[in-house]
Amino acid sequence: MKKASLLLLAALALAAQTPADGPQYNADGTLQLPANYREWVYLSSGLGMTYGPAASADTRNPAFDNVFVNPSSYRAFVKTGHWPDKTMFVLEVRNATEHGSINNGGHFQSDIRAIEAEVKDEKRFPRKWAFFGFGKKDAGTMNPATSSCNQCHGANAAVENTFVQFYPTLLEIARAKGTLNAAYLQKSAQDTPAAH
Amino acid sequence: MKKASLLLLAALALAAQTPADGPQYNADGTLQLPANYREWVYLSSGLGMTYGPAASADTRNPAFDNVFVNPSSYRAFVKTGHWPDKTMFVLEVRNATEHGSINNGGHFQSDIRAIEAEVKDEKRFPRKWAFFGFGKKDAGTMNPATSSCNQCHGANAAVENTFVQFYPTLLEIARAKGTLNAAYLQKSAQDTPAAH
Repeated sequence: MKKASLLLLAALALAAQTPADGPQYNADGTLQLPANYREWVYLSSGLGMTYGPAASADTRNPAFDNVFVNPSSYRAFVKTGHWPDKTMFVLEVRNATEHGSINNGGHFQSDIRAIEAEVKDEKRFPRKWAFFGFGKKDAGTMNPATSSCNQCHGANAAVENTFVQFYPTLLEIARAKGTLNAAYLQKSAQDTPAAH
Repeated sequence: MKKASLLLLAALALAAQTPADGPQYNADGTLQLPANYREWVYLSSGLGMTYGPAASADTRNPAFDNVFVNPSSYRAFVKTGHWPDKTMFVLEVRNATEHGSINNGGHFQSDIRAIEAEVKDEKRFPRKWAFFGFGKKDAGTMNPATSSCNQCHGANAAVENTFVQFYPTLLEIARAKGTLNAAYLQKSAQDTPAAH
């Protein structure tokens, strides 16, 4: 039993170091799309949002974007309001359909248009966070540091490099834990968002 | 060790009988809103869909609806295309916001407007499935069998009593497993949905 217990402890220690649901890379440096990301924790969706490149301003052909985060990082954020190292977001962009089945108004989701990801990997990326585009493939290519993703998140993100302002349940947590970025707080004090 | 092993086996057997993520009721028959339903498996979202009572046709004030299902039932559906007994869906209706933060077009999600649920509990409900309305409370009241939820799902659902036609990843599974309702197949062969 003693050997088995030691083995178990070693396995647990290893598991604690490398979260099973964190980012995994291929030998060529591309990011692997996790096969089960649809079972990760859902954060929110938008329709026709114009801030992101894949969901850019096409008002006649709007897209839904669904955001998922790896479960271990979600649980850490709920406790602390911070994202731990090896956090990974998946942004799934889907076509919007009208008037299908019994739906007579509004939009519901259909096929995938593209997939993107944002990853926190402090040792791997000079800016700690990086963005990847998958298109419809399962290997994601890193965006250059000059990409619109990097620039817009860097300037406008509510928590670290992430758009927590669009994730209603997490925004409350960040507010309560005091982890909102100073620049975001300053800007949002000036804005008067039109809620409806 | 023998006693401990027996206890472990007993605990596992009990856990297998009652899925930890299934429906739980209060003594007065109301349904408990699971505290962690946001960590359940996300199925899809709509914006301004007019089929549901809580998200009814208010085009100037559209709502998002997010659908979550308990993880053990999700995994069973992925394998079989059927919903096991004690399946529970949570429908979260959220307000839609425009022009907040850096978003200049489209809509993103804000506060909860209402929560509803659909539950499969074969021994408890004469029609096997029942609907509950929570409003903003954590105890849900069952809708009468004559409710629009029951009638519309009964007539139009793609799989058993559920709107799998609006959950793109599950629709593919149901099609592959051959578990789509005959009435749904007949209707959808007549329709030509306007995808855009």
